[in-house]
Amino acid sequence: MTAYHFEPIGRIHSCFTEKFGIPRQPNLVPEAWATLDILPVFQKAEAFRELDDFSHVWIVFVFHRCYGRPWKATVRPPRLGGNRRVGVFASRSGFRPNAIGQSVVTLRRIEREKGRLRLHLGGVDLLDGTPVLDIKPYLPYADCIPDARAGYASDAPAHRRRITFSSGAERRIAILDAARYPHLKALITGLLSQDPRPAYKGTGDQAAFGMRLWDLNIKFEIQANGMVVTDIETAFG
Amino acid sequence: MTAYHFEPIGRIHSCFTEKFGIPRQPNLVPEAWATLDILPVFQKAEAFRELDDFSHVWIVFVFHRCYGRPWKATVRPPRLGGNRRVGVFASRSGFRPNAIGQSVVTLRRIEREKGRLRLHLGGVDLLDGTPVLDIKPYLPYADCIPDARAGYASDAPAHRRRITFSSGAERRIAILDAARYPHLKALITGLLSQDPRPAYKGTGDQAAFGMRLWDLNIKFEIQANGMVVTDIETAFG
Repeated sequence: MTAYHFEPIGRIHSCFTEKFGIPRQPNLVPEAWATLDILPVFQKAEAFRELDDFSHVWIVFVFHRCYGRPWKATVRPPRLGGNRRVGVFASRSGFRPNAIGQSVVTLRRIEREKGRLRLHLGGVDLLDGTPVLDIKPYLPYADCIPDARAGYASDAPAHRRRITFSSGAERRIAILDAARYPHLKALITGLLSQDPRPAYKGTGDQAAFGMRLWDLNIKFEIQANGMVVTDIETAFG
Repeated sequence: MTAYHFEPIGRIHSCFTEKFGIPRQPNLVPEAWATLDILPVFQKAEAFRELDDFSHVWIVFVFHRCYGRPWKATVRPPRLGGNRRVGVFASRSGFRPNAIGQSVVTLRRIEREKGRLRLHLGGVDLLDGTPVLDIKPYLPYADCIPDARAGYASDAPAHRRRITFSSGAERRIAILDAARYPHLKALITGLLSQDPRPAYKGTGDQAAFGMRLWDLNIKFEIQANGMVVTDIETAFG
């Protein structure tokens, strides 16, 4: 069969400058904001007419870190503890025959200024730099099927972890530019409560981790009663 | 930005051999069955492991009749009577910058026989021959947002039409091969109750129509109190 060619209409700018820490599905962490910058050739205000009336949109995107790389017939979903393999088509893994993803996110607003068209999104699970192929309105009457059976992924991932911040981490947050790093504490709390550690890498004994958000390194430790954010480094900037 | 290339993993076989009559969203007509035949290179049973446990799947596909054709910044959604234009990104029209569609459909069963892997689907809105790029499990906890605001498309399209069959049409259905044309009467009823007529073509005065399903021509008329299926022709076979 023929191949089909698609060109991005825009690009995601998000806090997720690396894969570790990204929520495993959209909307699990509302504070995960991002922008979708529309490329000049698609910056036609008309093409977005009445989109503002939708609270949620589908973002169809390329898993660009996976694109062109080999896929495997089975994957190990993190929620199964990394011990069980399921078929790639029974998963949302980016390593699939066609590295296309779809995420429903909140549409916070559309910024229309001269020479720029930018969508502000919430609840994203998208890596910084993600190429976007399409935007579609979310239609609850068609897209929402509350009683769908979902096998191993029937329930939302449990939020089990209690998150606290060291006084040093609190001080760092207080002095960081809130416009550049919006609602950072809530964002970190939301992300860590998802327990981003990859179970299958056998991190059971490891106690200290780093998660990158923008150019920040969020250092945290696993303790008996939860996770503690120990420090926030701006090593990259 | 670079273009991305995707090759189909399979192809849809459905009753919809032409665009007229296709439900405007998936799941509006449960009787609209289809099969998705997986291409030989992707026929790895492993890749579908545990997919059977999901009642619904996303089909990511190419609007192949629209692919490569020019797109317009605005479209006229049928539900608005064809009189109002909205932005293409506020619509699900196939004429979009990247002719990619996504439909959530029911997964009736997976047929695994030697040399064949075939998904049996229900509630489809997919044209016969549609190239499929991906299959993803439907995850209610991530994909179902019951209170999403959806602007002009907030409500499901109304089923207003009363559908009846002439005795001639009834007789035709009775003698047609039920395996080849499964639950044909329920299918026709479901499709016509969606009122497939394109409002914007000014069909207000036209009273007789034909809708093609497989190789059948379903002839129907608009009458004061609903629609009447007047005849079913097998002219194509």
